[in-house]
Amino acid sequence: MSTPPVRPRDLSFLLHDWLDLEGLLAYPHFQDHGVETVDAMLDIAGRVAADTFLPHYKAADQVQNEPRLVDGQVRILPAIHQALAAFAEIGMFAAPFDAEVGGLQLPQLAYSAAMAQFMAANVATAAYPMLTAGNARLLVRFADKALVRACALPEIEGRYFGTMCLSEPQAGSSLADIATRAVPDGEDGLGPRYRLFGNKMWISGGDQDASENIIHLVLAKVPGPDGKLVAGTQGISLFVVPKVLVEGSEHAGQRNDVVVAGLNHKMGYRGTANCLLNFGEGARHRPGGQAGAVGYRVGTVGQGLPIMFQMMNEARLSVGLGAAMLGYRGYRLAVDYARDRRQGRPLAAKGGAPVAIIDHPDVRRLLLAQKAYAEGALALILYCARLVDEELQGPAEGRPAAAGLLGLLTPVAKTWPSEWGLAANDLAIQVHGGYGYTRDFDVEQLYRDNRLNPIHEGTTGIQGLDLMGRKTLRDDGAALALLRQRVHATVDRARTQPGLADFAHVLEVTWARIGALVGHLKAAGDDVTSLAQATSFLSAFGHAVVAWLWLDQAVVAGGLGATDDPEEAAFRAGKLAACRFFFETEVPRVDVWLGIVGRRSDLTQTLDPAGF
Amino acid sequence: MSTPPVRPRDLSFLLHDWLDLEGLLAYPHFQDHGVETVDAMLDIAGRVAADTFLPHYKAADQVQNEPRLVDGQVRILPAIHQALAAFAEIGMFAAPFDAEVGGLQLPQLAYSAAMAQFMAANVATAAYPMLTAGNARLLVRFADKALVRACALPEIEGRYFGTMCLSEPQAGSSLADIATRAVPDGEDGLGPRYRLFGNKMWISGGDQDASENIIHLVLAKVPGPDGKLVAGTQGISLFVVPKVLVEGSEHAGQRNDVVVAGLNHKMGYRGTANCLLNFGEGARHRPGGQAGAVGYRVGTVGQGLPIMFQMMNEARLSVGLGAAMLGYRGYRLAVDYARDRRQGRPLAAKGGAPVAIIDHPDVRRLLLAQKAYAEGALALILYCARLVDEELQGPAEGRPAAAGLLGLLTPVAKTWPSEWGLAANDLAIQVHGGYGYTRDFDVEQLYRDNRLNPIHEGTTGIQGLDLMGRKTLRDDGAALALLRQRVHATVDRARTQPGLADFAHVLEVTWARIGALVGHLKAAGDDVTSLAQATSFLSAFGHAVVAWLWLDQAVVAGGLGATDDPEEAAFRAGKLAACRFFFETEVPRVDVWLGIVGRRSDLTQTLDPAGF
Repeated sequence: MSTPPVRPRDLSFLLHDWLDLEGLLAYPHFQDHGVETVDAMLDIAGRVAADTFLPHYKAADQVQNEPRLVDGQVRILPAIHQALAAFAEIGMFAAPFDAEVGGLQLPQLAYSAAMAQFMAANVATAAYPMLTAGNARLLVRFADKALVRACALPEIEGRYFGTMCLSEPQAGSSLADIATRAVPDGEDGLGPRYRLFGNKMWISGGDQDASENIIHLVLAKVPGPDGKLVAGTQGISLFVVPKVLVEGSEHAGQRNDVVVAGLNHKMGYRGTANCLLNFGEGARHRPGGQAGAVGYRVGTVGQGLPIMFQMMNEARLSVGLGAAMLGYRGYRLAVDYARDRRQGRPLAAKGGAPVAIIDHPDVRRLLLAQKAYAEGALALILYCARLVDEELQGPAEGRPAAAGLLGLLTPVAKTWPSEWGLAANDLAIQVHGGYGYTRDFDVEQLYRDNRLNPIHEGTTGIQGLDLMGRKTLRDDGAALALLRQRVHATVDRARTQPGLADFAHVLEVTWARIGALVGHLKAAGDDVTSLAQATSFLSAFGHAVVAWLWLDQAVVAGGLGATDDPEEAAFRAGKLAACRFFFETEVPRVDVWLGIVGRRSDLTQTLDPAGF
Repeated sequence: MSTPPVRPRDLSFLLHDWLDLEGLLAYPHFQDHGVETVDAMLDIAGRVAADTFLPHYKAADQVQNEPRLVDGQVRILPAIHQALAAFAEIGMFAAPFDAEVGGLQLPQLAYSAAMAQFMAANVATAAYPMLTAGNARLLVRFADKALVRACALPEIEGRYFGTMCLSEPQAGSSLADIATRAVPDGEDGLGPRYRLFGNKMWISGGDQDASENIIHLVLAKVPGPDGKLVAGTQGISLFVVPKVLVEGSEHAGQRNDVVVAGLNHKMGYRGTANCLLNFGEGARHRPGGQAGAVGYRVGTVGQGLPIMFQMMNEARLSVGLGAAMLGYRGYRLAVDYARDRRQGRPLAAKGGAPVAIIDHPDVRRLLLAQKAYAEGALALILYCARLVDEELQGPAEGRPAAAGLLGLLTPVAKTWPSEWGLAANDLAIQVHGGYGYTRDFDVEQLYRDNRLNPIHEGTTGIQGLDLMGRKTLRDDGAALALLRQRVHATVDRARTQPGLADFAHVLEVTWARIGALVGHLKAAGDDVTSLAQATSFLSAFGHAVVAWLWLDQAVVAGGLGATDDPEEAAFRAGKLAACRFFFETEVPRVDVWLGIVGRRSDLTQTLDPAGF
C-alpha cells in the first residue's frame, strides 16, 4: 500500500477537527456528500498521488526529460500523461464543479485538501489540472452556454487542458501595457469572434501533448475606431482561443494560429512546460485561410481584467497551496532523515554512541520552524478554501463577509506560503547537510521548485501593494474589522486554556498594533511613502494572520478531549509545540516589520540610484 | 578591455580608504610592495578573472560538462584547466606565500581582494586554488622541510593542487568519529610513513586532471597498542597523502592507493569536483606492492585536529569570501537589469510611459538589501584578512589582540556572508522576475551555488556552537572586550558626523545589550539551555558586527573630503544609503534574536520528537 504524500491525520485535523467540514457539508449544495465520501475521495487522491505523481518527480526534473519543442509541438514526459489520466479517471478534474456541468460538486475545502496531496507529490505535474480547473471555472461563470459546452465541459472531463495568457515580453506584471490586438471578425456559433495578434510570455502549459486540445484564456485589446489600442487596463478584453478550433466555430477542427515560439528553461518546476506563444503569425496555421488566432470574447469589451481576476485570484490560492506543500514535503523528508541519521552527541554528553540528529536542539529548531511554516501555510490556504465555500454556497447573510475576508487574505495566501514554504525548504536542506545539497535527495529540487512561487501570479512586491493599497488604504476597513473580530474570538477561547493565555495576549497586542498602524497610515495621507513599505506591511500582516491560525489550531488541539492513543497524543503535542515555537520565535519579527512601516522612511524614494 | 567582476572603486574604497592598506605595507614583511604594485596586481587579477574564469561560469554548470569519472580519473572541463593555468601564470598561487618558499609575500588583505575577483567570476573554479593555498600554508607552517619541498613548493607554483580530507560517510561534521586508520610503515626521506585505510566523503577537488599531482591532507587515527582507535578528537593525527608519490618517498613516482569511489552531483558549485575517496583499498594501486595509501605524518600523533584547524579556519574565511562574492555578483547583475528593464509606472503617476524598474521603491529596497548584504559581507572578510596580516606580520604587541579578534570573528565571517549572501542572491532573482528563474540568466546559478556555503566547512549550527560555546561561554571575554572597544571607537567617530549620530547611538545600545546578554548567560550557568539558542546568538552577533562595519564605512565615506566627480559623489552617497538601510531595516532584527537567546526557552529540549 502506497504511503500518501500528506499524513492523513494532518488533513483530518485541519478538515474535521479545525475547519468543521461537516458543517460545510450541511449546506444544501453539498447534500450529496458526507464525511465518509469526502474521506474516501481524499484517500483515493493520496494513493493516486503516491502511485502516479510522485514516481516521476525527479525524472521530470532531469534535463533530458524537460519539455521539448518538436516540429512546433511541445512534448512532455509520458509519465506526466499517465499521471494526469489517472487524475482524470478518479474524477479529480470534475471534483469542484457543479453537477449541471458534469461536476462532483465537492466543497472547495475538500477539493483543496485533495489537490494538496497531488502538489506535495509533484507540483509541476499538478500545475496542468490546477490551471485547467481555474480556466473552466471562469468559463462556467462568465461565458455563454455554447462556449461552456464546447470548451469548459471537456476540461471538466479532463480531455482539454487550460491556460491563462496574460504577460507579454514587454509587459510582465504591467498588464496595462499589453499590446496583443483583437480585431473583430464577425460572429459564429460560439459568439462574437475576433482575430488575435500578439506575443504572450511565461505561459504555463502553453503547449503539451497530454490533452486533446488546449483552451487559452487570452487578454488582448480591441482597437478603437482610430485603430489604436486603449491605454491602461480599461482597454483589456478577454478571449477564448482554443489550440484547435472547437465545435460551434465556423473553423471547427482547424488548427488555430497559435505557435510556440520557445520554451523557458527554468531552475525548477521543469515538468510544467512554460512557453512563449505567438498569436496570429499566419505563417504556420491559417484558420479559414486567414492569419490571426481565432478567439471568442468572454464578457463585454474592456471588462477583461475584472473577469480574469476570477482565475487570477483562484490561481493565487493555488500557488500558495503548491508552495505550502513543497514546504510540507521537505519537512516530512527532513523529519525522516533526522530520525535515521546518527551523528554527534548531546551537548551535555561526554562521549557515548552517536545519537540521531533529531536529538540535537538546533536540528529540532530547524524542524519546528519547517513545521510552523509548512503546516501554517497549509492551514491558511484551507481556511481560505473554506471561505470560498462560504462565499459561494453558504447562507446568504454570511456571503459578503466571506467574500470580504477572502479578498483581504488572498495576497497573504499567495505570498506567505511562497516565502515561508521556501524558507522551510531551505531548512530541510540544512537538516540533510551535504547530502541535501546533492541531487540524490529530493530536498534540493523542492527548494528549486519553490523559488518560482514568490514570482508568478504576482510577485511578493505586487501582493504587498495589493494588500496595503487596494485592500487597506483605499478600503473602507470592513474586511479588516471582520478579520480582527475572528482574531478576537480566538483570543477569547485561548485565554482560558492552559499554556495559551500568554500567546492570546501577544496576539491581541499584535493585532491592536496593526489596527493602530493602519489608522496612522490612513491619517498620514501620503500614500506613496506608505506604499514604499508595502512589502514589510505584507510580511507583518502575514505573520500576524498565521500566528492567529496557529493559536486557533492550538485551541482546537488542546480541546479535543482525552486520548489514550500515544500517537494521537504526540500529534496534538506537536501542534502545541509548533504554536509555541511560532509565538516564541516568529511573532517577535512582526514588531520589526511594523516598526519599518510605521517609520515611513523616505530612503528608497530619495536616494540617487546612481549610488548603486 | 574586459570589465572586471568587481568594480575597482568598490575594492579601492575598502582597501585604501577604509582598511589602510598603505599602513599594512609599512610592515617590514611587506617592504617589497607599494600601493602601486598591489593595485597593478588587483588590476591584472580582475582582467584574468574576467577573461578566463567568467566565460565558463555557465558552461561548467551544465550537466554534460560536470566532472566525470573515466577509468578511475576525474575529468573536468578544459576551460577550468586553462583558467587555472592563467591564474598560475600571473603568480596568484604564489601571492600570499613568503619569498623563502617562492611566494610574492603579498598581504592577506591584498590577496583576498584579488581572490574576491576570481570568486565573483567563478566560485567553483576558484575553489581549486583556494584549497591549494590553504593546504600549502598548513604544510609550510607545520611540516618538515622535505615535505614542504616535495609537496608545498609545487603547490605554490600552481603545479600541484591540494585538498582537505576530513569527513567520512558515517561522520560528517563529527570528526571525533572518523574511522580512517593510519598504520605505521617505517620512515623514509619524507619522514614517518604510514599506510592509510578508510573512506573520505565530500572531498572538493578530490580528483581532477588539471594539476600534475594532488596533495591530500588526511585526518586519520593511529591504532593504539591494542589495535583499537582512540575515541574522540584527541585520537586524530594528520597525514600528507599525495595522489602520486613524490620525490623523497621510497615509492616516488608510484600511484598511491587512493581511489575515487564516486562523484557527488550537486545543486550548484558543479565545476568543483566533489569526491568520495577510498584510501587503502589495494585493488587498483599498490605502492611498493602493498595495499594502503602511503601517508606522511605532520605534527605529532594526536595533534591532527589542532593543526588542521589552521586550514579549516582559513577555509572558513574563504567560504565567507566566496559567499560574499556570489552575493556581490548577483547584486551587480540586478542593478544592471533594473536600469535596463522598463516596466510599470511610479506609484503617484496616472499614466505616462513605463519607467525603468530601478525607479520603483520596492525594487530599490531589493537592491539596497543586496548592497548591504554583499558589500557588508565583503567588508567583513577583508577586515578579517587584515587581522590575519596584523596577527602574522604586525608589530609584536598587537598580535595577540589580532589573533583574539580573528578567532572571535571567524564563525561570523564563515556564516554571515553565507546566510546573507544567499539572501542577496534570492533578491537578485526577484529583481529579474520570471527571467531570473530561467537558466538564461546567471542569478539562478549564483543562488544555487551559494546554497552550499551555509553547509560546508562547518554548518551554520556548528558555527553558532563555536561562537557561543568556545568563543563566549568558555572564554575569558578578552576578545569580546576588544571587539567592543573597536565598536566604541567607531561610535565615537560617528557621533560627530551629520546623519550618523542616531545610528551611533543604536549601535552602542545594541552592543551594550549583547554585553549584558553574555553576562546573563554566563551567570545562568546552564550552558546546555543557552547553547540551544546558539544559532540565534550567532545571527544577532553577526548583524551587530556588520552594523558596526557599515557605520565605520559610512564614517570613512562621509569624511573623504570634497569631490567634484559626480560618480565618486554617487559612490559615497550609495555607501551612506546602504548604511542607513542597514540601520533602518536590519539592525531591528538583532533585538528579536537577542530576545530569543535571553529567554532561553526549553522548547527544543523538552518537546517529544514523536510530535513531528
